[in-house]
Amino acid sequence: MDFSSKLLENAVNEVSRLPGIGKRTALRLVLHLLKQPTEHTKYLTEALSVLRNEVKSCKKCHNISDTILCEICANPNRHTEVVCVVEDIRDVMAIENTAQFKGLYHVLGGKISPIEGIGPQNLQIESLVEKVRNGEVKELIFALSSTMEGDTTNFYIYKQIEKYNITTSTIARGISVGDELEYADEVTLGRSIVNRIPFENSLKA
Amino acid sequence: MDFSSKLLENAVNEVSRLPGIGKRTALRLVLHLLKQPTEHTKYLTEALSVLRNEVKSCKKCHNISDTILCEICANPNRHTEVVCVVEDIRDVMAIENTAQFKGLYHVLGGKISPIEGIGPQNLQIESLVEKVRNGEVKELIFALSSTMEGDTTNFYIYKQIEKYNITTSTIARGISVGDELEYADEVTLGRSIVNRIPFENSLKA
Ligand SMILES: [Zn+2]
Ligand SMILES: [Zn+2]
Repeated sequence: MDFSSKLLENAVNEVSRLPGIGKRTALRLVLHLLKQPTEHTKYLTEALSVLRNEVKSCKKCHNISDTILCEICANPNRHTEVVCVVEDIRDVMAIENTAQFKGLYHVLGGKISPIEGIGPQNLQIESLVEKVRNGEVKELIFALSSTMEGDTTNFYIYKQIEKYNITTSTIARGISVGDELEYADEVTLGRSIVNRIPFENSLKA
Repeated sequence: MDFSSKLLENAVNEVSRLPGIGKRTALRLVLHLLKQPTEHTKYLTEALSVLRNEVKSCKKCHNISDTILCEICANPNRHTEVVCVVEDIRDVMAIENTAQFKGLYHVLGGKISPIEGIGPQNLQIESLVEKVRNGEVKELIFALSSTMEGDTTNFYIYKQIEKYNITTSTIARGISVGDELEYADEVTLGRSIVNRIPFENSLKA
């Protein structure tokens, strides 16, 4: 792309560094901002700057929070001894949305991924093991995505905590409610059969 | 979406005001910035702010430019009497890319669109008519998109300048080079037939 303006080129380059945003999309977004009142750009850039500079992570669960303890950890009605291990805040939001979980979370901040250069030391694993060691946790629920990285991360954590006498579980994988069997991928279908549950239990859901 | 952080919610809301960016995409982009070094957000927000606050438009063609006259208008090798009327900078970039045009541009900044509240007075039409009136232009090429708004805008400008003795043309519409006839939409195909060109001319391209 040949730009008539270095300022424009620079802005398009910065926007296109965002994941999934190509040069064309970046140009479209930047030209949109130029057509809008100056305030739009001001509000956008200030919101991003303030977030990036002032963002906190909850001291207890490492979720993104504006306060030292996030709303979930600060809520006296949550069961503090059941801890759900997730990758990031989107998983917390998704599980909270179901209104089915009353325990606390522990946000790892990612998954172990040698390819991306993410090792255990880059994640909130030590602080999780510490919670288990201190006896704060009775049950740990692994809710990472079911990929090789997710499985590796689960297993790494499991090996660190297996000597402590706590319950560990992993969220059920299976055919989505309402999905036709024939359209399910075979790995999911296979897990659904292997991890079948007593029929009476299925009546409770 | 229920956010655990007002700062995060605010940033996601601002990003999702951009066209084609939903809340989920906005959250993904913002979380990406949080995982990157602070500098990434700094460079991004500064590039946007500086562009929005310091952007100029070329005094002559109204293209986005960092200087009073854009590179094209300042180039002594361009034919100043042939002016191509376009909607925005993307059209200038696309035509420049073909290396087939040696005249100047006139960037309207949009098309007449009563639905979006864009009238002739919101566009760089008066300055175009002024150029024609002053005798600066010998040929005007209309290169707006071939939509109702584009046609309306072309016609509006044409009515303003028809009393001056200049050549007007519009870019050729037709089946794209290399495209199969059977897949072309009927409007394009129809225009291709109506605006057929002498066969010898097709041998030159
Ligand atoms: Zn928390
Ligand atoms: Zn210019």
